[in-house]
Amino acid sequence: MRMTKLAGKTSKKIDGEFNIASQKLLLRSGMFRSVSDGVYSVLPFGSKTMDKLLHLLTRELEQRGFQRVYIPSDKEFEKTASLTLRNDMKSYKDFPISIYDIFISQREKIKIKDGLIKSKRYTNLRTCSFFEDEEALIQGYDDIKNLYKSKLKDMGLNIFTLQSHNEKRSGARAEEFVYSCNRGDRKIFKCEKCRYKAFEEMSDFHIEEIEIDDKEIEAVYTPDIKTIKELEEFLNINSKDLAKTLLIKVKEEILAVVIRGNRELNPYKLASVLDVAVEDIEMAEYEEIDGSIETVPGFVGPVELQGVRIIVDREITKAGSLITGANKKNYHLKNVKYERDFEGDLVADVSYILGEDKCPLCGGTLNKEHGISIGKILNLDKINYIKNMLYKNKEGKPMGIYGISSYMDIYKLISIIVEENHDKDGIIWPLALAPYHVIISILNTKKEDQNSLGERIYNELKNKKIDVIIDDRKERAGAKFYDADLLGIPIRIVVARGSSENKVEFKLRWENEREELDADKAIEKVFNILGIS
Amino acid sequence: MRMTKLAGKTSKKIDGEFNIASQKLLLRSGMFRSVSDGVYSVLPFGSKTMDKLLHLLTRELEQRGFQRVYIPSDKEFEKTASLTLRNDMKSYKDFPISIYDIFISQREKIKIKDGLIKSKRYTNLRTCSFFEDEEALIQGYDDIKNLYKSKLKDMGLNIFTLQSHNEKRSGARAEEFVYSCNRGDRKIFKCEKCRYKAFEEMSDFHIEEIEIDDKEIEAVYTPDIKTIKELEEFLNINSKDLAKTLLIKVKEEILAVVIRGNRELNPYKLASVLDVAVEDIEMAEYEEIDGSIETVPGFVGPVELQGVRIIVDREITKAGSLITGANKKNYHLKNVKYERDFEGDLVADVSYILGEDKCPLCGGTLNKEHGISIGKILNLDKINYIKNMLYKNKEGKPMGIYGISSYMDIYKLISIIVEENHDKDGIIWPLALAPYHVIISILNTKKEDQNSLGERIYNELKNKKIDVIIDDRKERAGAKFYDADLLGIPIRIVVARGSSENKVEFKLRWENEREELDADKAIEKVFNILGIS
Repeated sequence: MRMTKLAGKTSKKIDGEFNIASQKLLLRSGMFRSVSDGVYSVLPFGSKTMDKLLHLLTRELEQRGFQRVYIPSDKEFEKTASLTLRNDMKSYKDFPISIYDIFISQREKIKIKDGLIKSKRYTNLRTCSFFEDEEALIQGYDDIKNLYKSKLKDMGLNIFTLQSHNEKRSGARAEEFVYSCNRGDRKIFKCEKCRYKAFEEMSDFHIEEIEIDDKEIEAVYTPDIKTIKELEEFLNINSKDLAKTLLIKVKEEILAVVIRGNRELNPYKLASVLDVAVEDIEMAEYEEIDGSIETVPGFVGPVELQGVRIIVDREITKAGSLITGANKKNYHLKNVKYERDFEGDLVADVSYILGEDKCPLCGGTLNKEHGISIGKILNLDKINYIKNMLYKNKEGKPMGIYGISSYMDIYKLISIIVEENHDKDGIIWPLALAPYHVIISILNTKKEDQNSLGERIYNELKNKKIDVIIDDRKERAGAKFYDADLLGIPIRIVVARGSSENKVEFKLRWENEREELDADKAIEKVFNILGIS
Repeated sequence: MRMTKLAGKTSKKIDGEFNIASQKLLLRSGMFRSVSDGVYSVLPFGSKTMDKLLHLLTRELEQRGFQRVYIPSDKEFEKTASLTLRNDMKSYKDFPISIYDIFISQREKIKIKDGLIKSKRYTNLRTCSFFEDEEALIQGYDDIKNLYKSKLKDMGLNIFTLQSHNEKRSGARAEEFVYSCNRGDRKIFKCEKCRYKAFEEMSDFHIEEIEIDDKEIEAVYTPDIKTIKELEEFLNINSKDLAKTLLIKVKEEILAVVIRGNRELNPYKLASVLDVAVEDIEMAEYEEIDGSIETVPGFVGPVELQGVRIIVDREITKAGSLITGANKKNYHLKNVKYERDFEGDLVADVSYILGEDKCPLCGGTLNKEHGISIGKILNLDKINYIKNMLYKNKEGKPMGIYGISSYMDIYKLISIIVEENHDKDGIIWPLALAPYHVIISILNTKKEDQNSLGERIYNELKNKKIDVIIDDRKERAGAKFYDADLLGIPIRIVVARGSSENKVEFKLRWENEREELDADKAIEKVFNILGIS
């Protein structure tokens, strides 16, 4: 490739602020370009990098038997993949069967400051695998997890996996691939003492059992008190002393959820408990409550609450005595105890962790960290969203089909690679990931000897199928050095004054030293570094 | 590839009827699979074919300096491409600049019976080029046109180009690449005598000038006549004797369009004339007419029509005397003559051709044909949809940027390749386009000598990087022959009883003869056919 021809010029400055350093570099280097809020085009240098990364990952997938397909759906990937392969899964002999595709996915909630991490569209490498039983599924899950973990490790990335909400199969196993980054968009809680580590929305917390005197339940007059804040002031208490009862609507059913007054409802946990999608959970409207439930908005409480199923956060069952609404206008109840005064139809962890919570395993201090999640694996378990997804086993008996899907966001992957591999001057591509391996900078294109030596080296490297780019622009030497550092090509060969004596300057992007070499020695050195004979 | 592993089994039967033979073959061969109405997945065999075709086309594009990018927009491709490259086009030295991308496009109007030809989603190879002046643009237009024409010809496809509506730049040149096919979805008019050939919506037609006596204009009482049909019966005339005046709305303006009673308004032609998009043209609603224009719906006519611009179809100006609405309830006018009784603010060709029309060039008989349009080139002319799209010329003066875009529908391309290359048994891939070049069929996988000979040939071909597929399934011989014919792989090597003597059967898909050969001779023959030394 010739720099004079390359679409996607480098920029010294980029408008806008980003949370993560890599974003400016990806834009300044001309790999990506913003075309509107949260929408990016990929330019040739970026497209070459994506091709390289996709090739590294898909080659590995193909070696493990994954086959390339195109699934024409974004949100219903698993379902459409199942339909696509339905006729290919009739007998036990057809398993396992695994496919992958590369899709331009849409993101609903963009965040401009996160750049490509939260862009409107992104390249999504997706896989779907089907198995004949649960045992094979468990093995398959570990296989794809390990494949990505080891491949990402080969890329020099320190990636860990964290348990995740499974939006495709409520309650089943799901994990995300996470890169630790203090400006990342995902919150993580990590124990100081033990190995506990979890996404905020998945995090459990230590629940202390509180024992108290058996005081009698007591109604308190709380006139015109509408909010928890007002109640705190009126009774001179802390929100922790309260149990709040939220009325929510899940697929037409109204449910009461009782959690501590200082906590938020965790829709991910609740969705798993109820086996529904997070989007199915809404706050109930006044009109929907009115009439069907004998209570008064603002004074809802679990004691003698009729007409709804009650879900009680596990913490409430250990919380001793609490203040609740009395289901009667202007009244609350004091000294309310779980089991003695009310019971739940279901007890489960359904509230969000708070900053001051302790480790659920060892009671140690939890620290807040941040990360970027670049991909996910989901256990789809026995496929139940398509009728009669069955195959015949050896005995001719119809059996269920088990599935796994995975997603890898290539825009995020490029972002964290650049995040991990850069300095103040620009990107530092590791050899294995570099879109081009060598850049040849002709410092003064007006000099015939520099041009001809540069072109000779360029052609010799191209003949060996080396990814090489030549800076043949009529720019100042300073601009060429600046851009070479910004683009981060691993090996730089500078053709300058010494060219009349066949000399070039040889430098690796991650080293400070430059070396004057005979041009042919330099070519030989490139071959050695790249393992070409 | 091993048939035992290949996702996408062949089928003997496919549900549904299609207009075009290739569609059943594409589904039966397991290249594509329908997942819902008009929505198709691509399976590995299809994905391999697409890769091959895309590679053939993009290699050619890259040799002409087109660079790979990703433009994140379907409908606003040109605009987004312009924005993407805006900073790469500041000086005359930056031109020409050309990019391509591969996009999964959405089609609004699907047609199930046309299969992949009118599917909901399809793979779209798009290009966009920018030039410094009109001269370079004209050359660039011919370049991309000739590139595709010659590449499609190399593929053995008989493709012609036809003038097309330019929806990106009203009135500017645009052409489509058309494959002649009597079950195709596009109507074409072709002159029996001269070389005139045009899409129905682009077709002009011969207009005969009619001379008549100068009869006086005369009002006729036509009580309760609401439709042209009723008027024909009431006055005992033909719809050709009428001029109908349509009130249309174009971007808030009401316009009157006068065309012959037997014709339809052609929105493509009208859009070009008015320099608007086809979607901008609507029929005006009664409420929109009422008050602003002194007329009566059902009795609208051009004579003394006030308050609107009048567009007159050119045919009307030569049509002699006509009957029109009188702009007065229950009245029409007879003997209305253009120029004497009314004039248009604009005269242009704005009506649709009819089956009985004659050639606009020579008056010869026009025949109706059908075709499939697989791609399009559009002259974008001087970019005017982005403010200040300018560059500086040699003298430092800001100049406008000129553009061209093109589209190639890869699903349609595959369809017509299969349409052109099949017989009753299946596809017959031409060597240059075949997803796999060789299929090895092991007739009896229970026989060790057949397996080992088959595997040996397979490995020897694979070592030479030949695209080879081995049918290692435990199927009957008949099923294997059947599938090999259906899949259409050019070279078939059958490993059967002769394998103990190292003999195989060699056959080309497009020939009837089979040849018994020594296995090594067969391998050598493959090398010869594929030009491998």
